[in-house]
Amino acid sequence: MLPRCLQHPISSPDKAAEQAALARQQQLTKPPGSLGVLEQLACRFAGFQGRAIPALSKTLIRVFAADHGIAARGVSAFPQAVSAQMVANFCHGGAAICVLARRQGADFGVVNVGCISPVADHALLRNCPVAAGTKDFSEAPAMSASELTRALEMGVQALGEGDCSVFVGGEMGIGNTTSAAALLAAVLDLPAEQVAGRGTGISDTQWAHKCQLIHQARALHRCNAYQPLEVLRCLGGFEIAALVGAYLGAAQRGIPSLVDGFISTVAALLAVVIDPAVRDWLLFAHRSAEAGHQLALSELDARPLLSLDMRLGEGSGAALALDIVSAALCLHGQMASFTEAGVSDG
Amino acid sequence: MLPRCLQHPISSPDKAAEQAALARQQQLTKPPGSLGVLEQLACRFAGFQGRAIPALSKTLIRVFAADHGIAARGVSAFPQAVSAQMVANFCHGGAAICVLARRQGADFGVVNVGCISPVADHALLRNCPVAAGTKDFSEAPAMSASELTRALEMGVQALGEGDCSVFVGGEMGIGNTTSAAALLAAVLDLPAEQVAGRGTGISDTQWAHKCQLIHQARALHRCNAYQPLEVLRCLGGFEIAALVGAYLGAAQRGIPSLVDGFISTVAALLAVVIDPAVRDWLLFAHRSAEAGHQLALSELDARPLLSLDMRLGEGSGAALALDIVSAALCLHGQMASFTEAGVSDG
Repeated sequence: MLPRCLQHPISSPDKAAEQAALARQQQLTKPPGSLGVLEQLACRFAGFQGRAIPALSKTLIRVFAADHGIAARGVSAFPQAVSAQMVANFCHGGAAICVLARRQGADFGVVNVGCISPVADHALLRNCPVAAGTKDFSEAPAMSASELTRALEMGVQALGEGDCSVFVGGEMGIGNTTSAAALLAAVLDLPAEQVAGRGTGISDTQWAHKCQLIHQARALHRCNAYQPLEVLRCLGGFEIAALVGAYLGAAQRGIPSLVDGFISTVAALLAVVIDPAVRDWLLFAHRSAEAGHQLALSELDARPLLSLDMRLGEGSGAALALDIVSAALCLHGQMASFTEAGVSDG
Repeated sequence: MLPRCLQHPISSPDKAAEQAALARQQQLTKPPGSLGVLEQLACRFAGFQGRAIPALSKTLIRVFAADHGIAARGVSAFPQAVSAQMVANFCHGGAAICVLARRQGADFGVVNVGCISPVADHALLRNCPVAAGTKDFSEAPAMSASELTRALEMGVQALGEGDCSVFVGGEMGIGNTTSAAALLAAVLDLPAEQVAGRGTGISDTQWAHKCQLIHQARALHRCNAYQPLEVLRCLGGFEIAALVGAYLGAAQRGIPSLVDGFISTVAALLAVVIDPAVRDWLLFAHRSAEAGHQLALSELDARPLLSLDMRLGEGSGAALALDIVSAALCLHGQMASFTEAGVSDG
């Protein structure tokens, strides 16, 4: 069962505002439809904000970090200590997501949902690990029911209380592509080989091992798309559960989420399986180079904004795609109409 | 023959600087290659600027506008008067490219290379029409040799004298997708039906007519890829010739150009046919919705940064893609290395 803080209904975006924005687009000095996806983005934000001319005020970026028991089985090119080291790097501004968040002037923060190593406190860090990493899901459920609840709650809490035009969630966790692949295999009922990719860069042998572990885990847990919370509990990670909570919570508050790459998209898919009304509040940032991503996107009928072979996570693709959103809203708000500019409209 | 101002050799980008940038990318706190195309962009700019850590200082955006005799044959959804009206809209800040240029803090300007209607002077406008539009190329060469020379020169002159990190050329001219399609058909020796698209939005009948005019023009002029300047003279437009001049001139001065959509890419292809060394200085912004664009991109072995169904021209896709370039250089310059951040590198 979802925690109480996630038991709110999700409204639909405002169709009348979307139509008003579409009407405005037809009046701007350009051939109708010639700004392509940018026009659609502007209309969707009109629906999100309930006004014909939407604007980006605050952009919220939160990176969720946690460790995975499965990492002990050698499914990543990096040691588990890196998760906590990267949390410090996020706090000190040296990671890719930090650079991109600064460019955007975004409200940036980090959440330690469960790294295996202790992390020093910092002004940008919410340092409340649910546990020191999940359990190895090839041998036991990744987390307990109360741990799952706590991780979901941390996702909602990360949204804060204030106003927010768009939410970007990022993730960091050595081994988390294996967890995401296992989640996707369970939800779509697909063999591990179709959903597992190379993550941060592993060998053929490591990849075969990763597939074998996913196969073993699915045989052990036997949960499916009809039990999304149980799938998340058995095969997920704390940072993935936090993302699921954040996407659900954002939609419940009428905040759109710009979803990042493979792991985030799997979290978004779980959120949509839990409550299909979430889908209307999701935008998809980029098509990552990770194998399973296209499968998750197809299931969500999502067409991402960018396709640049990125596979970093951290929310980096979504932070980059914020530029496209921002440009779409600037064009929609600032372009002259045919009448204003004295241009014949064909 | 090219005008004297375009008779300079083109250097290769600096390979040593590209290698130094690639080495830096391997040290940054991320799995190697995980920023995908962004890493390649940073390395290419290192080559352009001859230093391991390149930066964007000034971005130059110039929109070239002119009219086309072929437009009198009804190949566009808009009347020819719109070209000059849009020049005024560019000057007064209401067009899409103006909004995008402001977002970038770019140096923005407009060049009237040959609109059919007079255009009022403005601080942002270079108002020196070569003629009041080209001739109808289905009946005569679009321009004389001296007009071609003048249009090419105006492209070079638009680059100015000062420092510039990247050049974006845009175009505006009612009927210019027909000219660009004819140019592409001649250079690639393809039937009109393969290269002609719907431009600003025309009917099936208009499209068939557009194809017929291109067919007629090619039968009349009979020039091919071995005579690129003659192709440009017979089938081109003043604004397209200016773009060819600008791409050649930018490469000769060691300035990379970020090429926009269909018409700009055809101009870039002509520049590369004239001097293949130009290719190293070109970046491609987006894959437009216009039919012939993919053919021109394939011929140039180009993979554009964006694919957002845009088909506006004006340099709008390129101005949008500047965000991707800017983000790539910020990441390259500002991310911490594994050593700096105390992160294990696997």
